[in-house]
Amino acid sequence: MGGGVELAGDEAHYLRRVVRVRPGEIVGATDGAGGLASLEVIEATETAQLRVVARETVTRRAELEVWCGAPEGDRADWLVEKLAELGAARLRPVDGRRGRWERFEARRARWERLAVAALRQSRSAFLLEVLPPAPLERAIEQAPTAQARWVCRPDGVPAPGRLTVPAGRAIAVVGPSSGFSDEELKLLSDNGFDGISLAGARLRTETAAVAVAALWAAADNPDA
Amino acid sequence: MGGGVELAGDEAHYLRRVVRVRPGEIVGATDGAGGLASLEVIEATETAQLRVVARETVTRRAELEVWCGAPEGDRADWLVEKLAELGAARLRPVDGRRGRWERFEARRARWERLAVAALRQSRSAFLLEVLPPAPLERAIEQAPTAQARWVCRPDGVPAPGRLTVPAGRAIAVVGPSSGFSDEELKLLSDNGFDGISLAGARLRTETAAVAVAALWAAADNPDA
Repeated sequence: MGGGVELAGDEAHYLRRVVRVRPGEIVGATDGAGGLASLEVIEATETAQLRVVARETVTRRAELEVWCGAPEGDRADWLVEKLAELGAARLRPVDGRRGRWERFEARRARWERLAVAALRQSRSAFLLEVLPPAPLERAIEQAPTAQARWVCRPDGVPAPGRLTVPAGRAIAVVGPSSGFSDEELKLLSDNGFDGISLAGARLRTETAAVAVAALWAAADNPDA
Repeated sequence: MGGGVELAGDEAHYLRRVVRVRPGEIVGATDGAGGLASLEVIEATETAQLRVVARETVTRRAELEVWCGAPEGDRADWLVEKLAELGAARLRPVDGRRGRWERFEARRARWERLAVAALRQSRSAFLLEVLPPAPLERAIEQAPTAQARWVCRPDGVPAPGRLTVPAGRAIAVVGPSSGFSDEELKLLSDNGFDGISLAGARLRTETAAVAVAALWAAADNPDA
């Protein structure tokens, strides 16, 4: 317990102008990796002075990693924002035969800002991590251990029958806007990715990714 | 059966330049109200000539109406697009104590275009209908008959336990970006709207609306 924190720039501005804190108030903070702190506001001017009054570390029973083919145009912006709000742990952009992620480095800083804003908004303790793009084959080779592997496809088993939230990691894969090729679907199937169908209608890439995160968030709801 | 159709302007352009049809090919069409037709392409130039080769009318066992408070900024654009893709039947913008929809008439034409594009994308037979905004009280007074009424709130029953898809209409209500007031929540509760919680984290207005539509679409999946 104890310890002081000084904030400047954007963070101080956010506290003073958006949250409008006053000295004496208690605010929450997170490091985006499960660390939570309660801080008392000592001073909120150009720089903010705060004092840590409580700390805790929370862990996740389950986490979702979304592998996503390239959506069209700027649709990735809201993909990132919505996955972050819905509590996905990680977004892995995947490149395939029919779609490649463009200008990743140029867009990364923007996505990180969107993920941080969503973290504040959702009052969660975990920041969405955006990994660099990888070819589908390499993503599969280097896949982390996972208790569930799904690929979203219209001919899959309807999600309510197959999507559960195991303790540990689940990976959900969504194809690019032009879809996966038959070979890519076979590769995924051969590597244990079970087909799930999210809706009767055909969904755009970013819609499917957000829908699977929404189903997962609902199933992972601690009171569920 | 039979009958000719002539298309000009945007629709002809879409067929010729986007779908790239050629004479002799069969294309699908819908009126957005359950009517489906198969048409043979006779000619695809500045105007397109088609011949109806089959017609059918499909009905929906269940439909979702989303009542939504005003989201921030331009977030309504993708709210409309995603509700349309996920197959919601109707969006009713609702005005409340803490949030009102602005510039509805100016934005309506844009939303109708987004809904039509989503209809094409999803290959569905039903177009999302966007109703004009109504105060929450009036929306409740004039609510259509519904087999289920839900309001999305963090203290509700987790969605997997409560969200089912009854035959007929379900209404899901989402608050504006600043949330419903206690009085509004009481009014909803008094009128039979059961609280459902969509996720452990706090969701933005448009995210909650899209998440509830995603849960509904998954539960309504004909093969589920």
